[in-house]
Amino acid sequence: MESPTRKPTPSTSRLTVDAYAHGILSHDRVVLSRAITLVESLLSSDQMLSEELIQKILPHTGNSVRVGITGIPGVGKSTFIESFGKHLTSIGKKLAVLAIDPSSQRTKGSILGDKTRMDELSRDDNAFIRPTSSANALGGVAHKTREAILLCEAAGFDVIIVETVGVGQSEVSVRSMVDFFLLLLIGGAGDELQGIKKGIMEMADGVVITKADGDNKKRANQAKADYQHALHLFPPPTSGWTPKVLVSSAIEKFGLKETWEMIEDFKTFTASRGFFELQRVEQNKHWFHSSIESRIMEEIMKHKILIEKVKKAELQVEQGMVSPGAASREIVDSFIKLLTNQK
Amino acid sequence: MESPTRKPTPSTSRLTVDAYAHGILSHDRVVLSRAITLVESLLSSDQMLSEELIQKILPHTGNSVRVGITGIPGVGKSTFIESFGKHLTSIGKKLAVLAIDPSSQRTKGSILGDKTRMDELSRDDNAFIRPTSSANALGGVAHKTREAILLCEAAGFDVIIVETVGVGQSEVSVRSMVDFFLLLLIGGAGDELQGIKKGIMEMADGVVITKADGDNKKRANQAKADYQHALHLFPPPTSGWTPKVLVSSAIEKFGLKETWEMIEDFKTFTASRGFFELQRVEQNKHWFHSSIESRIMEEIMKHKILIEKVKKAELQVEQGMVSPGAASREIVDSFIKLLTNQK
Repeated sequence: MESPTRKPTPSTSRLTVDAYAHGILSHDRVVLSRAITLVESLLSSDQMLSEELIQKILPHTGNSVRVGITGIPGVGKSTFIESFGKHLTSIGKKLAVLAIDPSSQRTKGSILGDKTRMDELSRDDNAFIRPTSSANALGGVAHKTREAILLCEAAGFDVIIVETVGVGQSEVSVRSMVDFFLLLLIGGAGDELQGIKKGIMEMADGVVITKADGDNKKRANQAKADYQHALHLFPPPTSGWTPKVLVSSAIEKFGLKETWEMIEDFKTFTASRGFFELQRVEQNKHWFHSSIESRIMEEIMKHKILIEKVKKAELQVEQGMVSPGAASREIVDSFIKLLTNQK
Repeated sequence: MESPTRKPTPSTSRLTVDAYAHGILSHDRVVLSRAITLVESLLSSDQMLSEELIQKILPHTGNSVRVGITGIPGVGKSTFIESFGKHLTSIGKKLAVLAIDPSSQRTKGSILGDKTRMDELSRDDNAFIRPTSSANALGGVAHKTREAILLCEAAGFDVIIVETVGVGQSEVSVRSMVDFFLLLLIGGAGDELQGIKKGIMEMADGVVITKADGDNKKRANQAKADYQHALHLFPPPTSGWTPKVLVSSAIEKFGLKETWEMIEDFKTFTASRGFFELQRVEQNKHWFHSSIESRIMEEIMKHKILIEKVKKAELQVEQGMVSPGAASREIVDSFIKLLTNQK
């Protein structure tokens, strides 16, 4: 497998749209990998090319279950995904894992740098592991991961896992691009949620308590009961699905089969009520609108004079000198004037 | 008091900015009411005027505690706010209640039409009750309510309640404009959350179980224990504040004093840690950025040809014929071309 490219650097050689599409549709994972690099590129020529590609493969997408998995570092996320992934490939599934890497945004070093991460799974012929970059701060992360999902689907993968770290903004984005959102937690002394952002709990369609082995088993089962009770107090989701809590151990190899059964149950349940498809349509509409917003911000930020104006306005807003409403009007008016040359 | 204006209809007579500002700063509630009508107006001349006004009164704002209150119909929200409001005015507070009225968006009839709503409070000299419209679907709701908060602060109100119905998108907006977010619930048979949207529970800084009187008392106390336990399982909020659960009865008049004490405790606690101020700064920055986005969408929607393109693109996206990325590019490119006249 090609080594993961974390920053969207412009590649020296591009294929034609037809060559990308042909490669992807014939399940060539080297071409798939290069296509993901293409959609991640910030070069506008690459962006044009990748949109053409997405449009071309669009009829071959949608045939997977998209699963978001989150949990703070220490919860055993990689270990869980590796064991869970091996279970999936063992029952004949083709699995793609897209990991959202926040390193470039936070300059804290990559969570994905560790070469031993998901070692076994990465050598599995029916699995494809790929970090996707979050270099573009203007809402671009989500769009690029969405496009990567479509590419993986066209390449024949039938389960797509989108992995995220559970401490930042990215969970909300991921929630908006997957069918099923799974939260990993450790059973512990009540402070197991330190670091998980508020609101993530309620986005979950399922919770898995990890590391339920040895001395931890009792605590994990207690945590399961607690969370099941807590989730019961929550408003029922629009899907009508009641979120489930499971326990699992990667060492003792249990809870993996059950996790997949839960996801399949969810799909059957929500598909029969029309929600499964409806959620995807809603997600696409949301993607369309937020994509307009982020593209416009990109257009604004193409102008040096506007970058400076935005910075200055932000400072004045922070200091309470200018109201946010007046500040935003100045930016938008300046942008319109710049374009219409009525300076 | 002026009767509530639910739709932002252009008024026939406008004051000058100085006259509005003077009236507001001398606590003239008729002028305040007219100024809120002004900020709600969709006319661009009114918008210019209202921005000038906001800028003018800005140094006199910020001296209130902003409290968001939500709960589904049936929870006794009006009754609670009336009793709670009377308690506040009895201890010398000046209270403004801004109610977000979703009727125009949902065309289901107004929740605020009931003239007997908060009857006693509306006759209280130290209280001001005002519905704010949500007619403008493009993110405008929040901005207008934010501006109404600033106007009320400049008019000397020291507690601002923003009331919302707990079933829609507006809670997230309200959460982003208040210091303290209070969720009202009824103690009941476990299905009390039917109708409350997912995620609202986790946004709460406090929960009040209403109608804890007569036969309901036992159930309310049980619900209190349950929710306190459930909230304990949640990740701690960034404020460091642990959300509290109280019980109250408007009939037996308890839980009102305690609610206010909880809010004051919250303010003292978060102010000492710098969070109270920090949250407001963050809210302003967020307001600034989302205001740029909604203004740009307004600019786009000024062009008939673009309205049609957006509609058509939405349909194609829904049907899976065009990828959201390609569709959004077409809209933004068309907009830029229209402005630069390079058609």
